[in-house]
Amino acid sequence: NLPQTFNSYGKYNHPLDSPSSRKRLGFLQKNNSLEERSRIVSSLKERTAKTLLSCDNIGGDARFRRTETDFSNLFARDLLPAKNGEEPTMQFLLEIVEILTSYIRKTFDRSTKVLDFHHPHQLLEGMEGFNLELSDQPESLEQILVDCRDTLKYGVRTGHPRFFNQLSTGLDIVGLAGEWLTSTANTNMFTYEIAPVFVLMEQLTLKKMREIIGWPNGEGDGIFSPGGAISNMYSVMIARYKFFPEVKTKGMAAAPRLILFTSEHSHYSIKKASAALGFGTENLILLNTDERGRVIPADLEAKVIAAKQKGYVPMYVNATAGTTVYGAFDPINEIADICEKYNMWLHVDGAWGGGLLMSRKHRYKLNGVQRANSVTWNPHKMMGVPLQCSAILVRERGLLQGCNSMCAGYLFQPDKQYDVTYDTGDKAIQCGRHVDIFKFWLMWKAKGTVGFEQHIDNCLDLSAYLYNKIKNREGFEMVFNEEPQHTNVCFWYIPPSLRSLPDGRERRERLHKVAPKIKAMMMESGTTMVGYQPQGDKVNFFRMVISNPAATRSDIDFLIEEIERLGHDL
Amino acid sequence: NLPQTFNSYGKYNHPLDSPSSRKRLGFLQKNNSLEERSRIVSSLKERTAKTLLSCDNIGGDARFRRTETDFSNLFARDLLPAKNGEEPTMQFLLEIVEILTSYIRKTFDRSTKVLDFHHPHQLLEGMEGFNLELSDQPESLEQILVDCRDTLKYGVRTGHPRFFNQLSTGLDIVGLAGEWLTSTANTNMFTYEIAPVFVLMEQLTLKKMREIIGWPNGEGDGIFSPGGAISNMYSVMIARYKFFPEVKTKGMAAAPRLILFTSEHSHYSIKKASAALGFGTENLILLNTDERGRVIPADLEAKVIAAKQKGYVPMYVNATAGTTVYGAFDPINEIADICEKYNMWLHVDGAWGGGLLMSRKHRYKLNGVQRANSVTWNPHKMMGVPLQCSAILVRERGLLQGCNSMCAGYLFQPDKQYDVTYDTGDKAIQCGRHVDIFKFWLMWKAKGTVGFEQHIDNCLDLSAYLYNKIKNREGFEMVFNEEPQHTNVCFWYIPPSLRSLPDGRERRERLHKVAPKIKAMMMESGTTMVGYQPQGDKVNFFRMVISNPAATRSDIDFLIEEIERLGHDL
Repeated sequence: NLPQTFNSYGKYNHPLDSPSSRKRLGFLQKNNSLEERSRIVSSLKERTAKTLLSCDNIGGDARFRRTETDFSNLFARDLLPAKNGEEPTMQFLLEIVEILTSYIRKTFDRSTKVLDFHHPHQLLEGMEGFNLELSDQPESLEQILVDCRDTLKYGVRTGHPRFFNQLSTGLDIVGLAGEWLTSTANTNMFTYEIAPVFVLMEQLTLKKMREIIGWPNGEGDGIFSPGGAISNMYSVMIARYKFFPEVKTKGMAAAPRLILFTSEHSHYSIKKASAALGFGTENLILLNTDERGRVIPADLEAKVIAAKQKGYVPMYVNATAGTTVYGAFDPINEIADICEKYNMWLHVDGAWGGGLLMSRKHRYKLNGVQRANSVTWNPHKMMGVPLQCSAILVRERGLLQGCNSMCAGYLFQPDKQYDVTYDTGDKAIQCGRHVDIFKFWLMWKAKGTVGFEQHIDNCLDLSAYLYNKIKNREGFEMVFNEEPQHTNVCFWYIPPSLRSLPDGRERRERLHKVAPKIKAMMMESGTTMVGYQPQGDKVNFFRMVISNPAATRSDIDFLIEEIERLGHDL
Repeated sequence: NLPQTFNSYGKYNHPLDSPSSRKRLGFLQKNNSLEERSRIVSSLKERTAKTLLSCDNIGGDARFRRTETDFSNLFARDLLPAKNGEEPTMQFLLEIVEILTSYIRKTFDRSTKVLDFHHPHQLLEGMEGFNLELSDQPESLEQILVDCRDTLKYGVRTGHPRFFNQLSTGLDIVGLAGEWLTSTANTNMFTYEIAPVFVLMEQLTLKKMREIIGWPNGEGDGIFSPGGAISNMYSVMIARYKFFPEVKTKGMAAAPRLILFTSEHSHYSIKKASAALGFGTENLILLNTDERGRVIPADLEAKVIAAKQKGYVPMYVNATAGTTVYGAFDPINEIADICEKYNMWLHVDGAWGGGLLMSRKHRYKLNGVQRANSVTWNPHKMMGVPLQCSAILVRERGLLQGCNSMCAGYLFQPDKQYDVTYDTGDKAIQCGRHVDIFKFWLMWKAKGTVGFEQHIDNCLDLSAYLYNKIKNREGFEMVFNEEPQHTNVCFWYIPPSLRSLPDGRERRERLHKVAPKIKAMMMESGTTMVGYQPQGDKVNFFRMVISNPAATRSDIDFLIEEIERLGHDL
């Protein structure tokens, strides 16, 4: 029965006939000792004797165990749906899982680096067998596994406890499991027909989010979109459709000159939307903020009046709940008053701050959010859901559909046997739409609302810890006073050489270069990552954000000391 | 040493103290026999004796083996980054992998159903322990694993050899491995800083695609977007930016009345784009097609002239390479001539047909594509890459950046230590952008260009087989004559009761109901899935498409017989 066993590898009838049989068990180990080789041969003999050792039969379901497999003579074409492809498929996937679980364990291990930095030209030239070029001929699965390891090796561990570089950090295990399942299901959100469970999960989760926002009975509408920028773009589109539905058919020529308002601290996606949708960026008016980065409502009202006096039509206001840099929350209630008074659409961009709605302690920062016409809320930021997961929520039902529906007969057939109001495709600006809901739904099941609340409260506690630790520390200077509203802590590190310099051009110019230099050294040494940027007339400063559930006070301490260590001699 | 061993489960010091210890080994098996229970207890004793049996030390790297674990008292909070979270994390992920690999094996097994259909209200009411509602309190990981199994159980196996319902079908194992890795890396394409390897892979792959299109040296630009609809939207945006850059700042008011052209058979995303971007759907002119669904170039020219005579500005033409329903290829060269003559942007929507460029035998169907200004090409369709994977390719470099850049200082710092031209974020309408490139790059490595070619040639051979089999078969009627250009085969099944009816209203009305009824029965019985739709004045017909690498002639035979079996008595 020998040949049959090894037929399970696709085409090699007897393993010892294979030219690479000596490499068995030697995956990725180029210098197998003689002892190992003899072990390989006896292992092979043992396996042939036992016939499909790797497949247990438990309760009727075959379960595969990882066995040593020679991938150097296996190719993609040997995997399912190939004949006898099941065994190599299972072994290949289990090898991948080994690579991934090893990566996951290292991600949470503080003794590993956050990244192993290389310049683009270095990676493009090829690193010891890691060659990015594509070729006409297939590579062996052994090479594919090497490529997978190398891809992770030269990447950035965004789940590492000391990765603070973006608003999205951390690696949630349940969310990750959800993504693995989503990829395996490999379907599309546009119809109930091919994504019944995911479509219902999306519907229930959006309703729950609307309840949390405070809309009566969670009524309204919404959809998951490929990120906060697209969610914000939706808000502008539906606002326009609400006030000037004829633009859908006749274009912007059918409307008067429409004016949008957003804070000078708001996310640039509002500006992108105003350009893309045909408003023009000049018709997006930037609002002044206080020193904490919050919109000054009186400035909004003054600018609305000024626009009206010019004969323009103020149509849309974006209030940010958690700005990107300062983490500021615009005063929603006061802005809502003005929107009601002048009949404007109120959107709340809670991409970053929306998560705080899950916290009984912090949700007051979004007071008035239930008065918004639409809300962007990205679970992939403050709630730790893997990328991408962003929702646009709309108070009035039917607008999304009205705005975007084109009734394509070949996709949305009214004569299906099920209730086709569950088909979501005609609400979207996309046709195919990735399943972003499952990981989020699964995390919510696994953590409960209280789990998200605890995560958010912990992150805010940590940022308060950081703030209190550096606010009076020598060499640190806060960008704005008072405790931050979100987990954003913005500060300059002043190296000793600058501390005695008087404020002025020279100090500013030199200080502007400090954060980039420290950041570059951090990346070269791979110890931690934190963002920096200028803002308005303020020179480059660090923006620390905490959304990583793996971060602890010791990591905050480490960051401060690392900045001091790297910046001391600048 | 007993307590220490079981500390690895997070918090339960001795497994036999746990109220659910009897359930160990009994995951999802509600009725463990006495014999099993005694096996559980001895298994536990054995494990405690061996201390972390599940963790081998090979070459310094700990490797985890799946062991029987009681998940009923484990929660998300016990997983990493929790203290001692490593062992439960690994066991949980390996259990997930067991669920997924079991699903994958069944997917390729023709004796399993394609789907287990339930109506929305049935799933919403809850199916034997599968409850979609979210709650405030966490669920155990055992419940989470049950939920994962049930999510797959009530879903649709889009990789099943008899799933023909969409343009995207199949489950590529290497692509799947790529997605699992992508989820684990959990990063974002906007900067080289946090996605160095993926950013370079995207760049190299886009260049390769441009070479295949035929642009000199593969020069030009491009980006992966969340689907063909968004890629098409990009094409309209950059065309407008090319001709009327002032629209970015001043809005559509700064441009004359702009006219877009596309075929009446083209994808509805062009219409969605014209609505969203402020052109208005009335300014999108639909072009007549021949009976095969291909644009008639003379009709384009006539309509361009008519628009100019009204004082409008013809700006943009979309030529479809592979229409959604008929699989028709518009004559690109003749359309390009007209575009050059009237100075219009030529976009080729190759979302579905672009894959044929990989086939030396079939790429002539896109002759002239190198004359396009932009091309949409979705590897997630004909090339079998998991969802989502869509590219917008642009011949002129700099337009994407010019059109979309907003220069957000907090995201794109010019003073970074690396070459920041690799940062892609300012080209996109998105801010965060999912990593769609890796699975595609990995598949290309694993298959080679020749592997994609073979897949595409096979699918087209299969569709020719289907066409030849039914074109003269009793009870089948083709929607259009001649062999299809793509894998789309469009046909009616005429039940015996209709065969003798003369053409006319009654026959049409009855025939219109046949495909929906057969489809509903297919879904109820779960044997196969194929799409149907009306088109123009043609009543509901089946549209068969083949992109699934698992499909064989026997599956085509099965489909035909299944339609006959289900439709015979209608």
